[in-house]
Amino acid sequence: MSKTHLVAEPGVPQVLVSRELNAPREIVYRTFTEPDLLVQWLGPRRLTMKIDTFDIRDGGAWRYTHRDEDGTEYAFRGIFHGTPSLDGIVQTFEFEGTPGQVSLETVTFEDLGSRTLVRTNAVYQSVANRDAMIESGMEAGLNEGLDRLDELLAKLTPVGA
Amino acid sequence: MSKTHLVAEPGVPQVLVSRELNAPREIVYRTFTEPDLLVQWLGPRRLTMKIDTFDIRDGGAWRYTHRDEDGTEYAFRGIFHGTPSLDGIVQTFEFEGTPGQVSLETVTFEDLGSRTLVRTNAVYQSVANRDAMIESGMEAGLNEGLDRLDELLAKLTPVGA
Repeated sequence: MSKTHLVAEPGVPQVLVSRELNAPREIVYRTFTEPDLLVQWLGPRRLTMKIDTFDIRDGGAWRYTHRDEDGTEYAFRGIFHGTPSLDGIVQTFEFEGTPGQVSLETVTFEDLGSRTLVRTNAVYQSVANRDAMIESGMEAGLNEGLDRLDELLAKLTPVGA
Repeated sequence: MSKTHLVAEPGVPQVLVSRELNAPREIVYRTFTEPDLLVQWLGPRRLTMKIDTFDIRDGGAWRYTHRDEDGTEYAFRGIFHGTPSLDGIVQTFEFEGTPGQVSLETVTFEDLGSRTLVRTNAVYQSVANRDAMIESGMEAGLNEGLDRLDELLAKLTPVGA
Protein backbone atom coordinates (compact mmCIF):
# COMPACT_ATOMS: atom_id res chain seq x y z
CA MET A 1 0.00 0.00 0.00
CA SER A 2 1.39 3.44 -0.93
CA LYS A 3 2.45 5.86 1.74
CA THR A 4 1.24 9.40 2.09
CA HIS A 5 3.86 12.14 1.83
CA LEU A 6 3.04 15.21 3.94
CA VAL A 7 5.07 18.44 4.06
CA ALA A 8 4.33 21.17 6.62
CA GLU A 9 7.33 23.47 6.81
CA PRO A 10 7.93 25.61 9.91
CA GLY A 11 6.82 29.20 9.36
CA VAL A 12 4.89 28.47 6.15
CA PRO A 13 1.04 28.45 6.35
CA GLN A 14 0.73 25.53 3.96
CA VAL A 15 0.40 21.74 3.92
CA LEU A 16 1.43 19.73 0.85
CA VAL A 17 0.23 16.14 0.60
CA SER A 18 0.95 13.63 -2.12
CA ARG A 19 0.02 10.00 -2.54
CA GLU A 20 0.21 7.58 -5.41
CA LEU A 21 -2.96 5.60 -5.99
CA ASN A 22 -3.35 2.35 -7.84
CA ALA A 23 -5.95 3.40 -10.43
CA PRO A 24 -6.08 5.53 -13.60
CA ARG A 25 -6.83 9.18 -13.00
CA GLU A 26 -10.32 9.09 -14.54
CA ILE A 27 -11.34 6.64 -11.81
CA VAL A 28 -9.52 8.53 -9.05
CA TYR A 29 -11.19 11.75 -10.17
CA ARG A 30 -14.60 10.10 -9.85
CA THR A 31 -13.89 9.20 -6.22
CA PHE A 32 -13.25 12.89 -5.48
CA THR A 33 -16.25 14.28 -7.34
CA GLU A 34 -19.10 11.75 -7.11
CA PRO A 35 -20.85 12.09 -3.73
CA ASP A 36 -21.80 8.38 -3.63
CA LEU A 37 -18.10 7.47 -3.89
CA LEU A 38 -16.71 10.31 -1.76
CA VAL A 39 -18.74 9.30 1.30
CA GLN A 40 -17.14 5.84 1.14
CA TRP A 41 -13.60 7.03 1.86
CA LEU A 42 -13.20 10.64 3.07
CA GLY A 43 -12.15 10.67 6.72
CA PRO A 44 -11.66 8.12 9.48
CA ARG A 45 -13.66 4.87 9.50
CA ARG A 46 -15.37 5.66 12.82
CA LEU A 47 -17.13 8.70 11.31
CA THR A 48 -20.22 8.54 9.10
CA MET A 49 -20.12 11.06 6.28
CA LYS A 50 -23.23 12.71 4.88
CA ILE A 51 -23.10 15.18 1.98
CA ASP A 52 -25.75 17.92 2.17
CA THR A 53 -24.64 20.00 -0.80
CA PHE A 54 -22.26 19.23 -3.63
CA ASP A 55 -22.76 21.74 -6.45
CA ILE A 56 -19.74 20.86 -8.54
CA ARG A 57 -19.34 23.96 -10.75
CA ASP A 58 -17.48 27.27 -10.66
CA GLY A 59 -18.85 29.13 -7.63
CA GLY A 60 -20.83 26.13 -6.40
CA ALA A 61 -21.00 25.27 -2.71
CA TRP A 62 -20.33 21.98 -0.95
CA ARG A 63 -21.15 20.96 2.63
CA TYR A 64 -20.83 17.69 4.49
CA THR A 65 -20.99 16.38 8.03
CA HIS A 66 -18.98 13.72 9.81
CA ARG A 67 -20.86 12.06 12.65
CA ASP A 68 -19.23 9.97 15.38
CA GLU A 69 -20.69 7.05 17.36
CA ASP A 70 -22.11 9.48 19.96
CA GLY A 71 -24.06 11.37 17.31
CA THR A 72 -21.79 14.41 17.52
CA GLU A 73 -21.62 16.10 14.12
CA TYR A 74 -18.73 18.02 12.61
CA ALA A 75 -19.72 20.15 9.62
CA PHE A 76 -17.43 21.32 6.84
CA ARG A 77 -18.12 23.49 3.82
CA GLY A 78 -16.56 25.42 1.00
CA ILE A 79 -16.93 26.74 -2.51
CA PHE A 80 -15.50 25.43 -5.78
CA HIS A 81 -13.37 28.00 -7.64
CA GLY A 82 -13.33 27.18 -11.34
CA THR A 83 -15.12 24.12 -12.67
CA PRO A 84 -13.56 20.93 -11.30
CA SER A 85 -12.02 18.73 -14.00
CA LEU A 86 -9.25 16.18 -14.53
CA ASP A 87 -6.93 19.22 -14.53
CA GLY A 88 -7.73 19.76 -10.89
CA ILE A 89 -10.03 21.05 -8.21
CA VAL A 90 -9.69 24.40 -6.43
CA GLN A 91 -11.93 24.91 -3.42
CA THR A 92 -12.16 26.70 -0.12
CA PHE A 93 -12.52 24.71 3.09
CA GLU A 94 -14.04 25.70 6.45
CA PHE A 95 -14.81 23.79 9.62
CA GLU A 96 -18.04 25.33 10.86
CA GLY A 97 -16.78 25.07 14.45
CA THR A 98 -14.19 27.77 13.73
CA PRO A 99 -16.02 30.44 11.72
CA GLY A 100 -13.77 32.92 9.93
CA GLN A 101 -10.98 30.35 9.54
CA VAL A 102 -10.78 29.44 5.89
CA SER A 103 -8.23 27.51 3.86
CA LEU A 104 -7.74 27.21 0.12
CA GLU A 105 -7.17 23.75 -1.37
CA THR A 106 -5.87 22.75 -4.78
CA VAL A 107 -6.04 19.08 -5.77
CA THR A 108 -4.34 17.74 -8.89
CA PHE A 109 -4.32 14.28 -10.49
CA GLU A 110 -1.10 13.41 -12.27
CA ASP A 111 -1.50 10.69 -14.89
CA LEU A 112 0.95 7.82 -14.30
CA GLY A 113 -0.83 5.45 -16.69
CA SER A 114 -2.50 2.77 -14.58
CA ARG A 115 -1.62 4.77 -11.45
CA THR A 116 -2.29 8.36 -10.35
CA LEU A 117 -0.31 10.79 -8.22
CA VAL A 118 -2.73 12.92 -6.22
CA ARG A 119 -1.34 16.14 -4.80
CA THR A 120 -3.22 18.35 -2.35
CA ASN A 121 -2.01 21.87 -1.58
CA ALA A 122 -3.73 23.63 1.31
CA VAL A 123 -2.89 27.20 2.31
CA TYR A 124 -4.09 28.71 5.58
CA GLN A 125 -4.55 32.29 6.80
CA SER A 126 -1.72 31.81 9.29
CA VAL A 127 0.82 29.28 10.53
CA ALA A 128 -1.20 29.14 13.77
CA ASN A 129 -4.32 28.06 11.87
CA ARG A 130 -2.28 25.50 9.91
CA ASP A 131 -0.76 24.12 13.10
CA ALA A 132 -4.16 23.89 14.80
CA MET A 133 -5.43 21.85 11.84
CA ILE A 134 -2.45 19.50 12.10
CA GLU A 135 -2.85 19.17 15.87
CA SER A 136 -6.54 18.29 15.43
CA GLY A 137 -5.39 14.95 14.00
CA MET A 138 -5.31 15.87 10.32
CA GLU A 139 -2.57 13.41 9.37
CA ALA A 140 -4.12 10.32 10.99
CA GLY A 141 -7.54 11.13 9.49
CA LEU A 142 -5.96 11.75 6.12
CA ASN A 143 -4.02 8.48 6.13
CA GLU A 144 -7.01 6.47 7.23
CA GLY A 145 -9.13 8.11 4.54
CA LEU A 146 -6.55 7.40 1.87
CA ASP A 147 -6.29 3.77 2.99
CA ARG A 148 -10.06 3.52 2.57
CA LEU A 149 -9.67 5.14 -0.86
CA ASP A 150 -7.17 2.41 -1.82
CA GLU A 151 -9.79 -0.18 -0.88
CA LEU A 152 -12.54 1.59 -2.83
CA LEU A 153 -10.31 1.95 -5.91
CA ALA A 154 -9.52 -1.78 -5.79
CA LYS A 155 -13.26 -2.43 -6.07
CA LEU A 156 -13.72 0.11 -8.89
CA THR A 157 -10.71 -0.86 -10.99
CA PRO A 158 -11.10 -3.87 -13.29
CA VAL A 159 -8.67 -6.68 -12.41
CA GLY A 160 -5.59 -6.57 -14.60
CA ALA A 161 -6.27 -2.99 -15.77
CA MET B 1 0.48 60.68 5.06
CA SER B 2 0.91 57.19 6.51
CA LYS B 3 3.14 54.66 4.83
CA THR B 4 2.13 51.20 3.79
CA HIS B 5 3.97 48.32 5.44
CA LEU B 6 4.29 45.26 3.19
CA VAL B 7 5.84 41.92 4.18
CA ALA B 8 6.52 39.20 1.58
CA GLU B 9 8.95 36.71 3.09
CA PRO B 10 11.05 34.48 0.84
CA GLY B 11 9.60 30.97 0.58
CA VAL B 12 6.25 31.88 2.15
CA PRO B 13 3.21 32.13 -0.18
CA GLN B 14 1.77 35.11 1.66
CA VAL B 15 1.71 38.92 1.59
CA LEU B 16 0.94 40.91 4.73
CA VAL B 17 0.05 44.58 4.33
CA SER B 18 -0.76 47.10 7.03
CA ARG B 19 -1.55 50.76 6.90
CA GLU B 20 -2.86 53.23 9.43
CA LEU B 21 -5.66 55.40 8.15
CA ASN B 22 -6.84 58.71 9.53
CA ALA B 23 -10.49 57.89 10.17
CA PRO B 24 -12.54 55.83 12.66
CA ARG B 25 -13.03 52.22 11.65
CA GLU B 26 -16.77 52.54 10.96
CA ILE B 27 -15.92 55.00 8.18
CA VAL B 28 -12.96 52.97 6.90
CA TYR B 29 -15.17 49.87 6.81
CA ARG B 30 -17.70 51.72 4.64
CA THR B 31 -14.99 52.51 2.07
CA PHE B 32 -14.27 48.77 1.75
CA THR B 33 -17.88 47.61 1.56
CA GLU B 34 -19.93 50.32 -0.20
CA PRO B 35 -19.49 50.00 -3.97
CA ASP B 36 -19.96 53.77 -4.54
CA LEU B 37 -17.02 54.45 -2.22
CA LEU B 38 -14.85 51.49 -3.22
CA VAL B 39 -14.69 52.58 -6.89
CA GLN B 40 -13.28 55.94 -5.76
CA TRP B 41 -10.05 54.51 -4.38
CA LEU B 42 -9.25 50.86 -5.21
CA GLY B 43 -6.32 50.69 -7.61
CA PRO B 44 -4.19 53.17 -9.58
CA ARG B 45 -5.62 56.53 -10.66
CA ARG B 46 -5.20 55.79 -14.37
CA LEU B 47 -7.67 52.89 -14.20
CA THR B 48 -11.45 53.26 -14.13
CA MET B 49 -13.11 50.80 -11.80
CA LYS B 50 -16.58 49.37 -12.43
CA ILE B 51 -18.27 46.98 -10.03
CA ASP B 52 -20.50 44.39 -11.74
CA THR B 53 -21.41 42.29 -8.71
CA PHE B 54 -21.01 42.96 -5.01
CA ASP B 55 -23.18 40.56 -3.03
CA ILE B 56 -21.83 41.29 0.43
CA ARG B 57 -22.95 38.23 2.41
CA ASP B 58 -21.60 34.79 3.32
CA GLY B 59 -21.10 32.96 0.02
CA GLY B 60 -21.85 36.06 -2.04
CA ALA B 61 -19.84 36.86 -5.17
CA TRP B 62 -18.07 40.05 -6.18
CA ARG B 63 -16.64 41.06 -9.57
CA TYR B 64 -15.13 44.29 -10.85
CA THR B 65 -13.19 45.51 -13.84
CA HIS B 66 -10.36 48.01 -14.10
CA ARG B 67 -10.19 49.75 -17.50
CA ASP B 68 -7.18 51.66 -18.76
CA GLU B 69 -7.08 54.63 -21.17
CA ASP B 70 -6.91 52.26 -24.18
CA GLY B 71 -10.13 50.54 -23.13
CA THR B 72 -8.34 47.37 -22.06
CA GLU B 73 -10.21 45.72 -19.21
CA TYR B 74 -8.82 43.64 -16.35
CA ALA B 75 -11.47 41.65 -14.50
CA PHE B 76 -11.23 40.39 -10.93
CA ARG B 77 -13.65 38.33 -8.91
CA GLY B 78 -14.09 36.36 -5.72
CA ILE B 79 -16.48 35.13 -3.06
CA PHE B 80 -17.07 36.41 0.47
CA HIS B 81 -16.55 33.75 3.17
CA GLY B 82 -18.55 34.64 6.24
CA THR B 83 -20.59 37.81 6.39
CA PRO B 84 -18.33 40.89 6.20
CA SER B 85 -18.46 43.03 9.34
CA LEU B 86 -16.33 45.40 11.42
CA ASP B 87 -14.60 42.24 12.67
CA GLY B 88 -13.21 41.69 9.21
CA ILE B 89 -13.68 40.48 5.67
CA VAL B 90 -12.60 37.09 4.32
CA GLN B 91 -12.78 36.66 0.56
CA THR B 92 -11.20 34.82 -2.32
CA PHE B 93 -9.54 36.78 -5.14
CA GLU B 94 -8.94 35.81 -8.77
CA PHE B 95 -7.66 37.71 -11.78
CA GLU B 96 -9.71 36.34 -14.67
CA GLY B 97 -6.61 36.47 -16.90
CA THR B 98 -5.07 33.62 -14.88
CA PRO B 99 -7.88 31.11 -14.34
CA GLY B 100 -7.21 28.53 -11.62
CA GLN B 101 -4.98 30.91 -9.67
CA VAL B 102 -6.83 31.89 -6.54
CA SER B 103 -5.77 33.69 -3.38
CA LEU B 104 -7.48 34.03 -0.01
CA GLU B 105 -7.63 37.48 1.60
CA THR B 106 -8.43 38.46 5.16
CA VAL B 107 -8.90 42.16 5.97
CA THR B 108 -9.20 43.44 9.52
CA PHE B 109 -9.87 46.91 10.91
CA GLU B 110 -8.18 47.63 14.23
CA ASP B 111 -9.83 50.41 16.22
CA LEU B 112 -7.29 53.12 17.17
CA GLY B 113 -9.97 55.64 18.18
CA SER B 114 -9.97 58.38 15.56
CA ARG B 115 -7.62 56.25 13.43
CA THR B 116 -7.76 52.70 12.07
CA LEU B 117 -5.07 50.12 11.39
CA VAL B 118 -6.06 48.11 8.32
CA ARG B 119 -4.32 44.76 7.88
CA THR B 120 -4.60 42.65 4.76
CA ASN B 121 -3.39 39.04 4.75
CA ALA B 122 -3.28 37.35 1.35
CA VAL B 123 -2.24 33.71 0.94
CA TYR B 124 -1.48 32.20 -2.47
CA GLN B 125 -1.37 28.64 -3.80
CA SER B 126 2.39 28.91 -4.24
CA VAL B 127 5.33 31.25 -3.76
CA ALA B 128 5.52 31.45 -7.59
CA ASN B 129 1.94 32.76 -7.77
CA ARG B 130 2.66 35.21 -4.96
CA ASP B 131 5.81 36.46 -6.69
CA ALA B 132 3.99 36.85 -10.02
CA MET B 133 1.41 39.01 -8.25
CA ILE B 134 4.13 41.17 -6.74
CA GLU B 135 5.97 41.48 -10.07
CA SER B 136 2.75 42.58 -11.77
CA GLY B 137 3.07 45.88 -9.88
CA MET B 138 1.00 45.01 -6.83
CA GLU B 139 2.88 47.30 -4.44
CA ALA B 140 2.72 50.46 -6.58
CA GLY B 141 -0.98 49.90 -7.30
CA LEU B 142 -1.65 49.24 -3.64
CA ASN B 143 0.15 52.38 -2.48
CA GLU B 144 -1.55 54.57 -5.04
CA GLY B 145 -4.92 53.11 -4.08
CA LEU B 146 -4.28 53.69 -0.38
CA ASP B 147 -3.20 57.28 -1.09
CA ARG B 148 -6.51 57.77 -2.88
CA LEU B 149 -8.24 56.20 0.13
CA ASP B 150 -6.56 58.78 2.39
CA GLU B 151 -8.02 61.52 0.19
CA LEU B 152 -11.49 59.93 0.21
CA LEU B 153 -11.43 59.51 3.99
CA ALA B 154 -10.48 63.19 4.41
CA LYS B 155 -13.67 64.07 2.54
CA LEU B 156 -15.82 61.62 4.54
CA THR B 157 -14.47 62.43 8.01
CA PRO B 158 -15.91 65.49 9.76
CA VAL B 159 -13.24 68.14 10.46
CA GLY B 160 -11.94 67.85 14.03
CA ALA B 161 -13.39 64.36 14.47
